[in-house]
Amino acid sequence: MTAPQDVRAGRARELDRAHIFHSWSAQAGLDPMTVVTGRGCEVVDEDGRTYLDFSSQLVNLNIGHGHPRVVAAIQEQAGLLATVAPGYANLARGEAAERILSHAPDGFTKVFFTNGGADANENAIRMARLHTGRDKVISFYRSYHGNTGAAIVATGDWRRVPNEYARGHVHVFGPFLYRSEFWASTEAEECERALHHLERVVQAEGPSSVAAILLETVVGTGGVLVPPPGYLPGVREIADRYGIVLILDEVMAGFGRTGSWFALDQHDVVPHLITFAKGVNSGYVPAGGVILSAEISATFDDRVFPGGLTYSGHPLAMASIVAALDAMAEEGVVENAARIGEDVLGPGLRTLAARHPLVGEVRGTGVFWALDLVLDRSTREPVPAAEVVAMRAALAARGLLAFVADNRIHVVPPCVVTDQEVARALAIYDEVLTDAEERLLG
Amino acid sequence: MTAPQDVRAGRARELDRAHIFHSWSAQAGLDPMTVVTGRGCEVVDEDGRTYLDFSSQLVNLNIGHGHPRVVAAIQEQAGLLATVAPGYANLARGEAAERILSHAPDGFTKVFFTNGGADANENAIRMARLHTGRDKVISFYRSYHGNTGAAIVATGDWRRVPNEYARGHVHVFGPFLYRSEFWASTEAEECERALHHLERVVQAEGPSSVAAILLETVVGTGGVLVPPPGYLPGVREIADRYGIVLILDEVMAGFGRTGSWFALDQHDVVPHLITFAKGVNSGYVPAGGVILSAEISATFDDRVFPGGLTYSGHPLAMASIVAALDAMAEEGVVENAARIGEDVLGPGLRTLAARHPLVGEVRGTGVFWALDLVLDRSTREPVPAAEVVAMRAALAARGLLAFVADNRIHVVPPCVVTDQEVARALAIYDEVLTDAEERLLG
Repeated sequence: MTAPQDVRAGRARELDRAHIFHSWSAQAGLDPMTVVTGRGCEVVDEDGRTYLDFSSQLVNLNIGHGHPRVVAAIQEQAGLLATVAPGYANLARGEAAERILSHAPDGFTKVFFTNGGADANENAIRMARLHTGRDKVISFYRSYHGNTGAAIVATGDWRRVPNEYARGHVHVFGPFLYRSEFWASTEAEECERALHHLERVVQAEGPSSVAAILLETVVGTGGVLVPPPGYLPGVREIADRYGIVLILDEVMAGFGRTGSWFALDQHDVVPHLITFAKGVNSGYVPAGGVILSAEISATFDDRVFPGGLTYSGHPLAMASIVAALDAMAEEGVVENAARIGEDVLGPGLRTLAARHPLVGEVRGTGVFWALDLVLDRSTREPVPAAEVVAMRAALAARGLLAFVADNRIHVVPPCVVTDQEVARALAIYDEVLTDAEERLLG
Repeated sequence: MTAPQDVRAGRARELDRAHIFHSWSAQAGLDPMTVVTGRGCEVVDEDGRTYLDFSSQLVNLNIGHGHPRVVAAIQEQAGLLATVAPGYANLARGEAAERILSHAPDGFTKVFFTNGGADANENAIRMARLHTGRDKVISFYRSYHGNTGAAIVATGDWRRVPNEYARGHVHVFGPFLYRSEFWASTEAEECERALHHLERVVQAEGPSSVAAILLETVVGTGGVLVPPPGYLPGVREIADRYGIVLILDEVMAGFGRTGSWFALDQHDVVPHLITFAKGVNSGYVPAGGVILSAEISATFDDRVFPGGLTYSGHPLAMASIVAALDAMAEEGVVENAARIGEDVLGPGLRTLAARHPLVGEVRGTGVFWALDLVLDRSTREPVPAAEVVAMRAALAARGLLAFVADNRIHVVPPCVVTDQEVARALAIYDEVLTDAEERLLG
């Protein structure tokens, strides 16, 4: 492969330092590595060095890098029609919606396309407010829903705090037994108490003021928190009891990450709206959207929906969705993620945990796992974030790109990962954990 | 050209009606035409019929449809690396920033990339608030800044009203002599009074509470309002007097639309932040961003910028920016837009106006024009919007795709439009104006 680029050594990094303003960072100290190309679970830097990508970049590359079928679809659509205004009909757009709906629960009939996950959540919130005629949105402290006005205030983690310029947002705690906010000692107790807490907040906020409950089906960046059995059906019951719209954010969890097409498939729950992005086309072209149930969609049959965007249903993005979902279905990519999680990665991470006192808990499903790192297994004191960032650098030095957040390493390879790649990765995690333990636990 | 698509006649429209939820619309009555492909200023529908695209879709296709160099760059980058997390360095991203900055005024040093114009404005507002430590954003009633939380409340037009869930937004009137809000009778008087009004609102809101003044350099969807000489330098003076950040939104006006690289080049003004999208790559891949002056950028050298997104600096989008800007520079696309406006389209529209009493005013520059349609030239009573929508259908029936808003037809072809295409379009506008006058004026 060759690039139409200026490949002088160091040029990418030099331009980056001179001209690129980076997300979620202080800018002065940055010195990022350069990624040039990739294939499957591997990427290559400018020196030709290969890395195992166990981050899926930002947990979006479900189909892996450089999938030939998705690449070909983009190339073909680029030659036919790259962009079109959303007001026109376009075949790629209709086919993308058809593919997405084929994997959604019964009763979902339409798709509203956006540029990514943030504006998917923005529009789902807008739909819920207009459908109910209510204002407030309840979401969760351990959550991330995107970077734009309403999405960032719906977000519960630290990124919300400097950005609180939208009104009507209320936050609650969700179930997380390992670090329970409810003094619970069993999964069943955690589930019951988390539901009680949610319902009490709904009551205290005034049920007739609450438009939506918005949550990630499996909390992603907040810690890969798989909800206990019964929690999500319980949330739906509360929503129904008070006439509230339930929005499930499947931006990170959807399209194979958990080992099923949607994470909600594993939880016996049907929401009113589903938001998606990332895995729908593995981010090959920016795209996201909202999947609407017939009930919410009908609200806007004769009433103008006051939202939209220039690139809604962008043909290049749509063609990449059609190709990605077809390839995933035909190649058994989702089934592979399930099998890897069940038979290879889950057991492998639990074996690591058994050998490493730094690992307080292993959580996850499919190719969506977290190692919750602790200085002390009894107190569960988190490893400082700076130490985990140092571990990420140590993993990269050994040839593995990792996703870290707070005190955790998230083990999130592409859904196409092989048994052999998992074995290579486990060996690298093992070495880095050993080194970190020497440093941190003496 | 062939597509990897199901091309059964009617299939695109059938899927659209079944599964696509459309922007800014009631959904029940829609029956959109299908666009299959395009080249330059023309698009082709599923019956093989060709249309002159004098809408540039949503005023984004500055380089026209299917530009071979941009298509090739997308195809090449897709094979190399479609996506990468924003934390890594990537050559296409650095080169895109370098190209963009080469057209910006002196003193601009960095680019923060987003997925489109809405999140560009979101992030510019965030930067201004954090830079100043202040809360309020002043923007204009005749404006559109995007569909997400803060962007839609910064927007002044009707689309804001059902979406007012963000705080700290204040709106003012800008200069627009034809429909003056200031009882002015000359451009100079309109300019002076609009500046007085803006400064009075700043004072009345409390200058130390105002973070930003946000406005489109040339108001786009709100009516193609070219500010009078001296207005924008006056706004900058007010901003400086009170320590306020000036953000110029060049999402629609930038990258050639007005006949210069940025619209601000024609107005003797330098802002603190510039937002862009659309024309930067003609929307071939969703992309937008913020261009930062050194002063604002320095605020985040040692302080975390609390904003970001998965597809910030997406390689496929970046490659399309590099190719689009290089092609525009080498092919004289911006110069063509200036020449067409000055010598062909501007004079042609004024000739139309002289013959058609329905045209109250012709406004614009470059390939960015509006026909302000009135029932009565003395009262300036606007033609009802429904009539203008009917005129759009009549234009399409004669083979021209038009952009309409309120009582206006916006004449906004690609910057690559030829004299012959302008002549064809003028003849079609002429016919449709004649028919509308028969209907509306008797």
